[in-house]
Amino acid sequence: MSSPETDGAEPADAGAQFLAEIREQPQALLRLLEYEPDYAEVARVASERGASTVRMVGHGSSDNAASYGVYAFGLAPRWTAFRDSISLTVHYGSNLDMSGSTAIALSQSGRTPDVVTYLERARSNGAFTVALTNEPESELATVAEAVLPLAAGEEHAVAATKTYLNQVAALGLLASHVAGRGGPFANSIRLVADELADFMPELERRVAPIASSFAFTGRMFVIGRGPEFATAREIALKLLETTRIAAEPLTATDLAHGPVAALDPLFPVWAIASDDETLPAVVEGARRAREAGAAVIASGNAADALQDAAYRLPLPNLGSRLLGPLLSVVPGQLFAWALARARGLDPDRPRGLSKVTLAR
Amino acid sequence: MSSPETDGAEPADAGAQFLAEIREQPQALLRLLEYEPDYAEVARVASERGASTVRMVGHGSSDNAASYGVYAFGLAPRWTAFRDSISLTVHYGSNLDMSGSTAIALSQSGRTPDVVTYLERARSNGAFTVALTNEPESELATVAEAVLPLAAGEEHAVAATKTYLNQVAALGLLASHVAGRGGPFANSIRLVADELADFMPELERRVAPIASSFAFTGRMFVIGRGPEFATAREIALKLLETTRIAAEPLTATDLAHGPVAALDPLFPVWAIASDDETLPAVVEGARRAREAGAAVIASGNAADALQDAAYRLPLPNLGSRLLGPLLSVVPGQLFAWALARARGLDPDRPRGLSKVTLAR
Repeated sequence: MSSPETDGAEPADAGAQFLAEIREQPQALLRLLEYEPDYAEVARVASERGASTVRMVGHGSSDNAASYGVYAFGLAPRWTAFRDSISLTVHYGSNLDMSGSTAIALSQSGRTPDVVTYLERARSNGAFTVALTNEPESELATVAEAVLPLAAGEEHAVAATKTYLNQVAALGLLASHVAGRGGPFANSIRLVADELADFMPELERRVAPIASSFAFTGRMFVIGRGPEFATAREIALKLLETTRIAAEPLTATDLAHGPVAALDPLFPVWAIASDDETLPAVVEGARRAREAGAAVIASGNAADALQDAAYRLPLPNLGSRLLGPLLSVVPGQLFAWALARARGLDPDRPRGLSKVTLAR
Repeated sequence: MSSPETDGAEPADAGAQFLAEIREQPQALLRLLEYEPDYAEVARVASERGASTVRMVGHGSSDNAASYGVYAFGLAPRWTAFRDSISLTVHYGSNLDMSGSTAIALSQSGRTPDVVTYLERARSNGAFTVALTNEPESELATVAEAVLPLAAGEEHAVAATKTYLNQVAALGLLASHVAGRGGPFANSIRLVADELADFMPELERRVAPIASSFAFTGRMFVIGRGPEFATAREIALKLLETTRIAAEPLTATDLAHGPVAALDPLFPVWAIASDDETLPAVVEGARRAREAGAAVIASGNAADALQDAAYRLPLPNLGSRLLGPLLSVVPGQLFAWALARARGLDPDRPRGLSKVTLAR
């Protein structure tokens, strides 16, 4: 076995854990569904308490999943949801009035210190507090009024994959139950799991040669809009963690408000295109990127609509805006895995990271 | 005059507009204060209507200023404020119930199409609608119930400077009026204007040689937390627009949750350190960056607390958490100006951008 420090000398099985967990995602999604009654119950309590403003907190991949939650609650029950400021409550002790709120704390380990403190205070500030965690016996779970198990199974790779995907599915399931459509959403998750399992081998084959073309890339933007902004954030984070590319997520529209000026032929753009009302913004973003000389990689269920893309990784369209992000993150995870290896890095052992981050 | 396309052949006055507008910021702040009665009136109406949930929207620098608004409203009147999703309301037409909300649309030009549409719909969804704009006769102003003039004076450089700073001051002034402390905050803005005018020449002299050291940098993180996260976002955007560095803003804590793995000696970090409850997180972020071999540039009123910094640009401490961001963005603006010139770019003419962005 290599040490975590030996860059450029990774063993043949570099990234084996990361890849195994990417491949395991269909099963992880199905495990989540075993807890559907818990999601239905939390939805019922939140509605009964009139806690219809949703505050979500988390770091890293958990915070990325929260970006999806904004759309899950906004589109299904039409509740206002947002990523709340942790430092306002934890560091500045501002004691906002949180009555009428559901506070959802996302932490895979359930041990992220400021997320635990946030939820404790949210409870005393009047919120209905919910822990969404892979560790239902964790400290986070003990401070929450309700616990929603992620049920992703133990995650070994430092870079989150199946816990992220289950967080996204969990927020979609909870929001759908609030809207009285939990059953159909659960069925959709089963469909997603089937589709994912079906196309995973083909996707692995298609992603590998594309990743090789970017072996010397230093910078990248990842663009998406609506529910797919979460996907853009998560793919950028996987690239930062495992490939050391400076990958920044942007909404397709924000790209035009400044960052497009930084693009050139050595600064590619990954664009996630979904067949919904935001597609014209993503098409326009990709066009602007191409105009600046940047290579464009298109993924998502409307990838074929991006005429300006050098590479396209289209995915099946399951017919709902909230299902796209359950599929569209996977090509990015596989790309990060293949690209890390092409760069001589071991994606299982990102430098300077550990599985549980206790930074405040 | 050079054309916008002639990289590396900028005229001697490259960036003259950008620099002039950075220098003009003290006067721009004072102009804002001429409209203080308008701010007091909007604060009164918002309170009377019970519109104590604040939804802010904008793109680019305007969205960065909104990050400050989260803290201005959270710390002064202890109101919940957040950056709302534009696409949920504009693209997906989700018609959220916005009663009890004040919706503040930020647009320098007042012409950003999706921001105008958002405000129209927010009004029909029950929000108290406010336009914060440099153009009080714009389309945005006509759809709003109340207009708050930015009064920054016409901005010619494509990259925003004085309009950003006035947006930050405006949100602080409005939030302080809601909290019944508008007068003292207005006095503080006068103090900021004085301090800024005083230290600008010295700061210009100190920033220039530091910028030269980074002439060949391709990637950077800019970290801050609390109200200074807005500053981190704005400095990163200035670097993207004018120097083409892939600069990504992160909270000091999020750096540890993944992105730190990408750092190396060619990937420096700009850290904004404020003397408040978030300082330990920023000190720890800088330490982690240094450990990864990254050079650290420290600015802010607690820059001297960052022992790990290769360069320090300390600023006066005006004794309030909400005043730091009114000073701390300026070293970043000057750094972007000097670095763009050191790289042979004209910061007045970022490639592919125009002053008013009409992208949807």
